[in-house]
Amino acid sequence: MASNVDKTSIAAYGPTRSTIKGQPLESQELKKMDTYFRASMYLCLGMLFLRDNVLLKEPLKTEHVKARLLGHWGSDAGQAFTWIHMNRLIKKYDLDAFFVSGPGHGAPGPLSQAYLEGVYSEVYTDKSETERGLQKFFKQFSFPGGIGSHATPETPGSLHEGGELGYSISHAFGAVFDHPDLIALTMVGDGESETGPLATSWHSTKFLNPITDGAVLPVLHLNGYKINNPTVLARISHEELSNLLAGCGWTPYFVEGSDRESMHQAMAATLEHCVVEIKKYQKQARDSGKPFRPRWPMIVLRTPKGWSAPREVDGRYLEGFWRAHQIPLPDVHKSPAHLKLLESWMKSYKPEEFFDSNGTLIPELKALAPKGNSRMSANPVTNGGLLRRPLDMPDFREYAFNDIESGVSIRGSMINMSKFLRDVVARNMTSFRLFGPDETESNKLAEVYKAGKKVWMGEYFEEDKDGGNLAPAGRVMEILSEHTCEGWLEGYLLSGRHGMLNSYEPFIHVIDSMVNQHCKWIEKCLEVEWRSKVASLNILLTATVWRQDHNGFTHQDPGFLDIVANKSPEVVRVYLPPDGNTLLSVMDHCFRSVNYINVIVADKQDHIQYLNMQEAIEHCTKGVGIWDWASNDQGQEPDVVMAACGDVPTQEALAATALLRDYLPQLKVRFVNVCDLFRLISETEHPHGMSDRHWVSVFTDNKPIIFNFHSYPWLIHRMTYKRPGQSNLHVRGYREKGNIDTPFELAIRNQTDRYSLAIDAIDRAQHLGNTASGVREKFINWQLAAKVAAYDDGIDPDHIRNWTWKYPRVKQE
Amino acid sequence: MASNVDKTSIAAYGPTRSTIKGQPLESQELKKMDTYFRASMYLCLGMLFLRDNVLLKEPLKTEHVKARLLGHWGSDAGQAFTWIHMNRLIKKYDLDAFFVSGPGHGAPGPLSQAYLEGVYSEVYTDKSETERGLQKFFKQFSFPGGIGSHATPETPGSLHEGGELGYSISHAFGAVFDHPDLIALTMVGDGESETGPLATSWHSTKFLNPITDGAVLPVLHLNGYKINNPTVLARISHEELSNLLAGCGWTPYFVEGSDRESMHQAMAATLEHCVVEIKKYQKQARDSGKPFRPRWPMIVLRTPKGWSAPREVDGRYLEGFWRAHQIPLPDVHKSPAHLKLLESWMKSYKPEEFFDSNGTLIPELKALAPKGNSRMSANPVTNGGLLRRPLDMPDFREYAFNDIESGVSIRGSMINMSKFLRDVVARNMTSFRLFGPDETESNKLAEVYKAGKKVWMGEYFEEDKDGGNLAPAGRVMEILSEHTCEGWLEGYLLSGRHGMLNSYEPFIHVIDSMVNQHCKWIEKCLEVEWRSKVASLNILLTATVWRQDHNGFTHQDPGFLDIVANKSPEVVRVYLPPDGNTLLSVMDHCFRSVNYINVIVADKQDHIQYLNMQEAIEHCTKGVGIWDWASNDQGQEPDVVMAACGDVPTQEALAATALLRDYLPQLKVRFVNVCDLFRLISETEHPHGMSDRHWVSVFTDNKPIIFNFHSYPWLIHRMTYKRPGQSNLHVRGYREKGNIDTPFELAIRNQTDRYSLAIDAIDRAQHLGNTASGVREKFINWQLAAKVAAYDDGIDPDHIRNWTWKYPRVKQE
Repeated sequence: MASNVDKTSIAAYGPTRSTIKGQPLESQELKKMDTYFRASMYLCLGMLFLRDNVLLKEPLKTEHVKARLLGHWGSDAGQAFTWIHMNRLIKKYDLDAFFVSGPGHGAPGPLSQAYLEGVYSEVYTDKSETERGLQKFFKQFSFPGGIGSHATPETPGSLHEGGELGYSISHAFGAVFDHPDLIALTMVGDGESETGPLATSWHSTKFLNPITDGAVLPVLHLNGYKINNPTVLARISHEELSNLLAGCGWTPYFVEGSDRESMHQAMAATLEHCVVEIKKYQKQARDSGKPFRPRWPMIVLRTPKGWSAPREVDGRYLEGFWRAHQIPLPDVHKSPAHLKLLESWMKSYKPEEFFDSNGTLIPELKALAPKGNSRMSANPVTNGGLLRRPLDMPDFREYAFNDIESGVSIRGSMINMSKFLRDVVARNMTSFRLFGPDETESNKLAEVYKAGKKVWMGEYFEEDKDGGNLAPAGRVMEILSEHTCEGWLEGYLLSGRHGMLNSYEPFIHVIDSMVNQHCKWIEKCLEVEWRSKVASLNILLTATVWRQDHNGFTHQDPGFLDIVANKSPEVVRVYLPPDGNTLLSVMDHCFRSVNYINVIVADKQDHIQYLNMQEAIEHCTKGVGIWDWASNDQGQEPDVVMAACGDVPTQEALAATALLRDYLPQLKVRFVNVCDLFRLISETEHPHGMSDRHWVSVFTDNKPIIFNFHSYPWLIHRMTYKRPGQSNLHVRGYREKGNIDTPFELAIRNQTDRYSLAIDAIDRAQHLGNTASGVREKFINWQLAAKVAAYDDGIDPDHIRNWTWKYPRVKQE
Repeated sequence: MASNVDKTSIAAYGPTRSTIKGQPLESQELKKMDTYFRASMYLCLGMLFLRDNVLLKEPLKTEHVKARLLGHWGSDAGQAFTWIHMNRLIKKYDLDAFFVSGPGHGAPGPLSQAYLEGVYSEVYTDKSETERGLQKFFKQFSFPGGIGSHATPETPGSLHEGGELGYSISHAFGAVFDHPDLIALTMVGDGESETGPLATSWHSTKFLNPITDGAVLPVLHLNGYKINNPTVLARISHEELSNLLAGCGWTPYFVEGSDRESMHQAMAATLEHCVVEIKKYQKQARDSGKPFRPRWPMIVLRTPKGWSAPREVDGRYLEGFWRAHQIPLPDVHKSPAHLKLLESWMKSYKPEEFFDSNGTLIPELKALAPKGNSRMSANPVTNGGLLRRPLDMPDFREYAFNDIESGVSIRGSMINMSKFLRDVVARNMTSFRLFGPDETESNKLAEVYKAGKKVWMGEYFEEDKDGGNLAPAGRVMEILSEHTCEGWLEGYLLSGRHGMLNSYEPFIHVIDSMVNQHCKWIEKCLEVEWRSKVASLNILLTATVWRQDHNGFTHQDPGFLDIVANKSPEVVRVYLPPDGNTLLSVMDHCFRSVNYINVIVADKQDHIQYLNMQEAIEHCTKGVGIWDWASNDQGQEPDVVMAACGDVPTQEALAATALLRDYLPQLKVRFVNVCDLFRLISETEHPHGMSDRHWVSVFTDNKPIIFNFHSYPWLIHRMTYKRPGQSNLHVRGYREKGNIDTPFELAIRNQTDRYSLAIDAIDRAQHLGNTASGVREKFINWQLAAKVAAYDDGIDPDHIRNWTWKYPRVKQE
């Protein structure tokens, strides 16, 4: 097909082409760098294939080759090539840089560099820089009990695993925010570039301040192919690709070819040009004190996929085609010719020129890498826990609701908490940021703008003076991309700082997969001894399902908790504080914690307040507790347990107990509130889990439990399926029933409203007299009346909207 | 901040600027169109505010205003404006066009058009074109029991709700594939544009064939603001924005301003230019038979947010600022001045010029809209079920494994099914497409390329001849963006065709939220009488957790089923066929079904085969069944029930029963296989659910059940928490334990391997003699040996890899 082929953009095989000209490398230096590159490629192939005979001292036999061949060759060369060229500049300019490996399964590239730099052997002493160590280094790769084919947590110098594609740029930006001297050399795969998260993350340029932040230097690797397909960006015209990147705010410099000698010169010249340009822009902004948005430099590196492999094997393309993606010679066990080819290919890198007889890199080449922490594989920023300092925290108790009448006062828990958040921000102006997809104001957190405005490096208009809250230097990061927000936050945390994401509850599902991956990263870090703990990832979910009545069905989804609950108990925590003081206590706890993914669910609207600060702290410490003051079973067995988890469900459950106490006082109701969701799980399954004995003391093992839950009801069942008296547990929650409703009608549709709960209690309690059926009838009528009011007036009736707990507290035992 | 402000790009308030010049509208026509526009704006305001006095015949009072004000004003004007200008061209060129409403909460725009075109009243007769009908039309909007503020399923002419942002472009492309004469006029929000899914979907241009597909005409609406922030694309320079869109393969034409008269001329000229250009490219390709990739035209429409609202209210910006996002005058109940302002604002649209005294649009204006199905609000493509034709299906039984020895033969179920899939594709060359993120070959489905290659409109290289399987006209759609694949497929289905998405199991979480939203759309469609049923969304998950041992922890996540299980039982189905013939039967069923989201989980590697086709059909029909031939409890009560759901878990569970039969024959084991996951739920909760009586007949209510499950084990508990004998149910599944392992070791870590299961059975069965402890010991040793082998050789031992069912089948009762 002829179409729009722009011949000039195709070939990685023609003469080397580059935007920046120059021959900065002396021939000796070039030769050394290429030898270093060959060493790296030798290591990559060794990782993929060998379990023994690692220096090829004897003829290669199948028993030297791993039985199961796993791992990926495709992007290794381009990554190693880029890394090596950065080493030169780190030394020349004393840079503080680290490497982000975006392309999928490209770990051999970075791993080979960590090994050549000596860091791997320092961290894992058994993988020493000897033949024996090399053998262990090779064998462990993609081998049971060993390491994976991504830049997993075991990889020195990595804060980005890349197991799921799309987050290299947003992670890199997160890491350089508030690290003004840091450069994130970020290798972006052209496959990865097709993902949505990556495509929009290029726009991070509008949120980076050249005075207070460091720089991201992306290298878009036009490797050409994915698993089995060409990549889009490698198959559009040079002009289109240039336009695209310029349109995202970058100045792209192209380096394209396959001839190593000229490619080394081109890359050396181009990378240096970019580094110099970055420093120039930073100096300009910093000297003048005037932040601006440069068209930041970046590189487009076009090399053949599987570069330095044989171009053809058995008459079919290998190098420069998708066949080079994974194991390039998959049948060496069966094909003696291919085994021979592997041997000669490895030998073509001339190991004798880089290793001494002991398998140690020769000093002359070792000298090419930077020293100490300047080595990208040893940059402490990639082990962010080392840099993390605890937040300077205000005392959350000072923000308490102190003047409340329990069960009567109606206040905004979220808007109150935002003052605490404001001061957390104010006290930690270089180590805490708040992230959110354009919802911070809507989520009632705008108070934080008083401590730090929204970072904005786009254009400013006249209107912005009218409450725009925008500034080049700020603390709040808002872009309508949950992916970018989450990626920035992850990068920020993994490089040693603190932060929080706030989001509408339904759309947090947009980043299910990112959160999954972060959970997995954190969990694996626990198994890696040298990894220091990082600050927890805090996700505040609001605009919750029960107040998404007006936005309709699309905005009703509380199922993120199900995603989180599947992750390892070592790393996930879920809190549903019932009121303002508990919210403060929970947030304080989360900000102080490390290595968790904390999910906090709290409504942003005004709410009835129940607990004073002391009670709140006690309740949060226990995580679950009987609220004696809302129960009437003191000193007796209850007839029924009314439990609630979540602020709206708590309000309705309390209202149900109030109704019952008014109209059916002989019914003894125990009220239980759950704030820490994982308390419900068995202690054998989760560190926060409670024992069965404790469970029975709270919930009983023989009384009906009406459990009003914030999310889908089945989550409670899956957490409690082994509990004594489990068959007495009746959970109400969101059952995917909703549309445009009033809040109360939405509750009715899902049977989480006070009347449904009270009726449930009546129906399940034993030995109720005849009065009960009259009361039941009454409740049904009131429920109907509320429904009718909704359809007539479009609002819930006053007695529901302004419901308060009208009983004096029972004195606590 | 001075930064890079390009003053020329800021103003929607300066003189109108446009790339295409021209004054195509006669003054009379222009006047009429503007009156039509005013009518539309009047309707939008009415929807937001009024419940009565809809023609403002009497002075506006608070009782005429809805008690709770909900809805969004921000993007209504731009959408209505665009729609109206398309009407002119539909009539002039007899176009087949429909409208996609991308900006969030912009439904009043399209709704007002549907009402003005008469379609709303045709569909909902009580919302007639009278004062009375208008009152109902106004009141229902964002009102309990009414309709939402997005283009929900209740909206005539909508196939894209837009409740969650980001999918307008991919939906539009999906709808025009194989609809060569269709134009999707696609309004893209500038907020939406910041999302990842939208950002990458611009690249859909590389997958559209101008001969066989229709066209997408995007109108990027630079509305300027989101909820509380400026938008990125409205705050970059004209040059950057131009570059960005050109870089994605488009030719952007700008229309910018706020002066209505000149804006009408500019939009009329520009939209016409785009339509003519589209037709020109299509003609060129179709006449020549040579498909090429034009730089398709698109429009950048910059108008003030909330256009036609007062610019300022009480000295603060309204029009052209984020305050115009939602309800523009939120306090009309409390502020008489604002109530008055609302009245005068509505009257400023001069309703007397467009409505007669009865509230009916005057004929002269009615004539501006097209007629019948040419009206965008009536285009049948937006009610795709009307266009859907059942697939021409080959007989799946003809693809059966017929020559298998049950429990012995090892075959590739997936690769076999791909032949069936190939023929489904071949027989339905304009109504079935296969979608996937670069994994079709890896997922062993490459056979389909024989029926239809991969659509590729990017450049072609020499290497592509070497098995590239690319073609301008094909049936397989592959881009490394699950979002784009899913969006295309949804658009394709909703416009009346069929298809399937194939994906690696772990990364399907990337589109959790999209699938959630599609489920919600389909469920609501069931409540909308005039919506015809569309083909089911089929998601085939492979590269499953149990064979992601080598890719490591990031690739191990079978939790998508938890997401699906939370959705409405009316629309979701999950199948885990245990072998090749059941997979064929399941796929056949799914392709024939309508209005479901079918999730099929099946491994792509070779597997032991168990059932002949007749048995497979019976098993799939039942969904769950006792496999007598694998049980030894015939005619007796079993001692233990061994159950399995999923192909790998079935293999291990069967191996466990084989071990037990060999070494502990006195233990009576019943084997149960579950293929249709929702059979496990109570019949009261899901249409596929089984009764308790049926449950007991299969699982017993008093015997231990060892249940080996494909996914996280807790999903089974949440589905079965009410079942008789629930406390006897012991579920094994993926417990988030994994790294680089062998397949068997991964199973051991999660206790889903044959030895763990057999030991479980021994431990839980009653009255086993002393022999049992010896057998138990033996199993533990074998398990250990497998583990050691894994670490030594990196592969599972032969007896595990080549395990076959070695018992002759017991004759069935």
